[in-house]
Amino acid sequence: MSRSPIVEELEPLFNPRSVAVIGATNNWNKWGFSTFSSILSGFGGKVYPVNSRQSEVLGHKAYARVTDIPEPIDLAVFVIPAPSVAAVMEDCVAKGVRAGVIISAGFAETGEEGKALQDEVLRIARKGRIRFIGPNCMGYWSASSNLRAFMIPLPVRVGPLALVSQGGNVGGSIVASGYERGIGFHRYVSCGCTADIQLEDYIEYFGYDPEVKVILAYIEGLNDGKRFIEKVKRVTRKKPVIVLKPGKTAIAAKAIRSHSGSLAGSDVVHNVAFRRAGVIRVELAEELLDVALGFLTQPLPKGRNVVIVTPGGSYGVLCAEACACEGLNVIELPEQTISALDRIFPPRWSRGNPVDPAGDRNFIAYLTAPEKLLKLDQVDSLIFMGFSGFSVFVSTLSSQAPALSDAFQPVLTSIGDFEKLTSLTAAMLGSGHISEIEKIVRPAVSTLVSALGIEDDEEIYDFTRLVAGAIASGNIAASLPAGRSRPISATNEVMAQPRRETLAEEVGYFLDRLIRYLVETYKKPIITTTFTEGGARLRGGQYAYPSGQRAAKVLAKLVEYQEYLNSCQEKVPEEDSARP
Amino acid sequence: MSRSPIVEELEPLFNPRSVAVIGATNNWNKWGFSTFSSILSGFGGKVYPVNSRQSEVLGHKAYARVTDIPEPIDLAVFVIPAPSVAAVMEDCVAKGVRAGVIISAGFAETGEEGKALQDEVLRIARKGRIRFIGPNCMGYWSASSNLRAFMIPLPVRVGPLALVSQGGNVGGSIVASGYERGIGFHRYVSCGCTADIQLEDYIEYFGYDPEVKVILAYIEGLNDGKRFIEKVKRVTRKKPVIVLKPGKTAIAAKAIRSHSGSLAGSDVVHNVAFRRAGVIRVELAEELLDVALGFLTQPLPKGRNVVIVTPGGSYGVLCAEACACEGLNVIELPEQTISALDRIFPPRWSRGNPVDPAGDRNFIAYLTAPEKLLKLDQVDSLIFMGFSGFSVFVSTLSSQAPALSDAFQPVLTSIGDFEKLTSLTAAMLGSGHISEIEKIVRPAVSTLVSALGIEDDEEIYDFTRLVAGAIASGNIAASLPAGRSRPISATNEVMAQPRRETLAEEVGYFLDRLIRYLVETYKKPIITTTFTEGGARLRGGQYAYPSGQRAAKVLAKLVEYQEYLNSCQEKVPEEDSARP
Repeated sequence: MSRSPIVEELEPLFNPRSVAVIGATNNWNKWGFSTFSSILSGFGGKVYPVNSRQSEVLGHKAYARVTDIPEPIDLAVFVIPAPSVAAVMEDCVAKGVRAGVIISAGFAETGEEGKALQDEVLRIARKGRIRFIGPNCMGYWSASSNLRAFMIPLPVRVGPLALVSQGGNVGGSIVASGYERGIGFHRYVSCGCTADIQLEDYIEYFGYDPEVKVILAYIEGLNDGKRFIEKVKRVTRKKPVIVLKPGKTAIAAKAIRSHSGSLAGSDVVHNVAFRRAGVIRVELAEELLDVALGFLTQPLPKGRNVVIVTPGGSYGVLCAEACACEGLNVIELPEQTISALDRIFPPRWSRGNPVDPAGDRNFIAYLTAPEKLLKLDQVDSLIFMGFSGFSVFVSTLSSQAPALSDAFQPVLTSIGDFEKLTSLTAAMLGSGHISEIEKIVRPAVSTLVSALGIEDDEEIYDFTRLVAGAIASGNIAASLPAGRSRPISATNEVMAQPRRETLAEEVGYFLDRLIRYLVETYKKPIITTTFTEGGARLRGGQYAYPSGQRAAKVLAKLVEYQEYLNSCQEKVPEEDSARP
Repeated sequence: MSRSPIVEELEPLFNPRSVAVIGATNNWNKWGFSTFSSILSGFGGKVYPVNSRQSEVLGHKAYARVTDIPEPIDLAVFVIPAPSVAAVMEDCVAKGVRAGVIISAGFAETGEEGKALQDEVLRIARKGRIRFIGPNCMGYWSASSNLRAFMIPLPVRVGPLALVSQGGNVGGSIVASGYERGIGFHRYVSCGCTADIQLEDYIEYFGYDPEVKVILAYIEGLNDGKRFIEKVKRVTRKKPVIVLKPGKTAIAAKAIRSHSGSLAGSDVVHNVAFRRAGVIRVELAEELLDVALGFLTQPLPKGRNVVIVTPGGSYGVLCAEACACEGLNVIELPEQTISALDRIFPPRWSRGNPVDPAGDRNFIAYLTAPEKLLKLDQVDSLIFMGFSGFSVFVSTLSSQAPALSDAFQPVLTSIGDFEKLTSLTAAMLGSGHISEIEKIVRPAVSTLVSALGIEDDEEIYDFTRLVAGAIASGNIAASLPAGRSRPISATNEVMAQPRRETLAEEVGYFLDRLIRYLVETYKKPIITTTFTEGGARLRGGQYAYPSGQRAAKVLAKLVEYQEYLNSCQEKVPEEDSARP
């Protein structure tokens, strides 16, 4: 794919070798202090404070003007009052600065006078070919430079997301939430009034960056809707772009004008524009990360057919309702699948979808059931509920009954041992070697199933295969949304490492491996949920959502994106595919 | 108010002196094991395992039949297969047992045969005047007896809520979420198939209990809608009843039939019934606790007019949009208030509602602004955003600038000292003594404001008064929804105690006191929000919601309840009130 000029143009912004911070100060009660401190915490290039009244700032020699700095400057960070920005921008042009970020507020968002000031700054920057972020923004983050040119000390985790936000607080809270939820960012830009670089420019730039897997945006208004569609639709064919866009109410539109100086525009028009551009639109800030996690950890579902497996009927009811509201099909199960589940569940099980064993204590059956469902052609995805509740159940049960703990331990240990083994002999172990692993793992599994009183040979065999598969997982490549291939473990590097301190966590880790194996094998998404609202967190690679409702929303967005990709391909009709 | 027979009838259920656990066992792989263990963990009365094959269970002498127990039995817990329940219920009648909980599944939810079994058990119980929970339930919790007659070891916090749930998993997850979120339960009942005691009976019973402040219910279907309305509308005039009711989609209705054996019924009909009964209906499980926390910590707003105070414009945009969607009025500010805020905020502030200081660093102004808004007659409530983000900001800033920390410490210390003082001389300090406290606190405040460079006398005075008010708070009574009075600190007993380990937490605690003081003084709700999704937690008495959207939903429900109470009173028209 040919690259746009944007990649070269924004290079000095995201990978500067030297930075001048205009307004850096020793006065802790100024933004110039916290911004300069933030840049110092991490950035490896040269940093020069520019301050006409202080000779040094936080131990760095200060310069009265940018032009006084003896060495070349790639990036200028502006943390000075708005009326002074234009003059300093002239200095930057003279100095040969290549990029800027104008944190200073008091431009287009304040009215006509501010808009004139902004236009003047833009005119000067254009003259010197300086591309800049802002004005009226909170700054940005670039993982490749470890550069945190941000007003406040924002906690950032490094990862595969990129975010551009027309609100520094909403953007900052998403980045901070990501930090807590174990998902990180390669780039984050608080874009402010978008005088120079537009929202669609950032998205286009992120589109070309191989480190960025999913793009997020908070948008208050677009300066040029057509340009946005043209640029963004090229990106959405390569990777998902998820957008949060308020402004459907008059009061929010008014607040937007006063905040970012944007025109919120008609919500209907935006929906059409987003659909044409292939953008996934969400309604709440937390859904940006919810959906991003879905894209990062799951393959795309082929269609809308879903099966729900739940440890309790009421969970299943709420999840089924949410799926229906999101336009997913909670399918009828074929008779032969019901018969297969009759063999492993007690007679009181739901005998339908949602699949609810109705309080069955045989958790081996609960773990082997998903595979019987994923095998079905008509099943496109699976929601597996009570993921962490299950591990808490096993561990509290174990604390009451050491016999269970003793029986479970060999299974967990064998997984642990195989982890070491796989890292040493990764080449040897692969999808073709599951049967080898089965032989080795069988004694450990036997101890557990006999402790649980399970005698059905097929059930024992299914579980043995599942444990072996879990051990082998991580060595099998899974397909990416757009058809490319990657090892799933690549995602894990950005995730929180599981702490395996308690049995509950060990069981959780074990479950994570089981799910990953099933996802890899059947190439269908499995969305998991936790037991409680606060219980969502990453274990290994998977993410467990706080409720069936949030899981259903994520799944619906994955379907929506797959349908969009299909519609892009339909322009080249495959005539034979319609024939049986 | 005259009490219904239900109070006496359910007394042996919630305050039994002795319990027989039918099906208690030493086999850790049975529900009879974990249920018996759960009861043993806490309950102070006598406990008797009933098991015909084991002579002792977990160290307690076991009896083959209930009738073999030598002492009187108040409560029977059934954890045996469904077909055996009727015969044992006959024994219970013979023994004079007064209450039961049938955890066993396999009754009405499985079809006609199970329904016949259930009718038989009901007939026998009626004969012996035994009231019972279930069948097909997970058990219940009674704080007054510390009784956890539950299938699994559920973490429960003691507190002012009561919950009845037609789903044990959804109910259990709400109780467990409450444990995590710092809000507890006086009663929790997983009511199962409601063969005997109906949903409305539990709600009526909770209505009479002075320990219960807010009632929650998860309902899949009602057996008698008219009876529900008649019983519940008497309760909702005394205290709020919040309901989650799925079943508006065909697939959920089908799942409900297979789960609880209920008919989901028409959603429109339910909405009408709930409105007539004065029930607050929510859409998501987490909203049950969200709204309950609103009722517990805030007075009811007089109307729909809200002001939003936000540390950032984009937060304000999303919150204003959410308020508008919930039917709240984000009001225009009067000119004189805008002028008053012009004095303390920089010129770039939003000059409207949402009130956004647009990155002003003077956090004293941010803290004194709410009072200027609450004073206005036309303001019914306030949403105060970035509550915990603010404390993180102050603390991270302090770590960079020890001067700020040094300046803030005297204010925090003076609050800490006054805490000790107030506990010793609570009688002396009251709303009338704020001016006395002001004199003492002024030196500490002066240190802080001079460090921040604040010179405006009025701003300093406002802040001094606020700090003094915060110190005095907790000694001033606030009015309850239904017009009764209680000290707000009564709520705090059930809340998580704040750990004051870091400056961020100390500042959070300080803010909590400020908010509480304002709520007490102006008798208007102040809903606070955190910075990040995961950041919601209790500090002292207040609760900070994860987003403006969730805050807006809570506020809308408080308004809805006030409007309902108003409509109840309108039946006695006050003729004079229409005149100016």
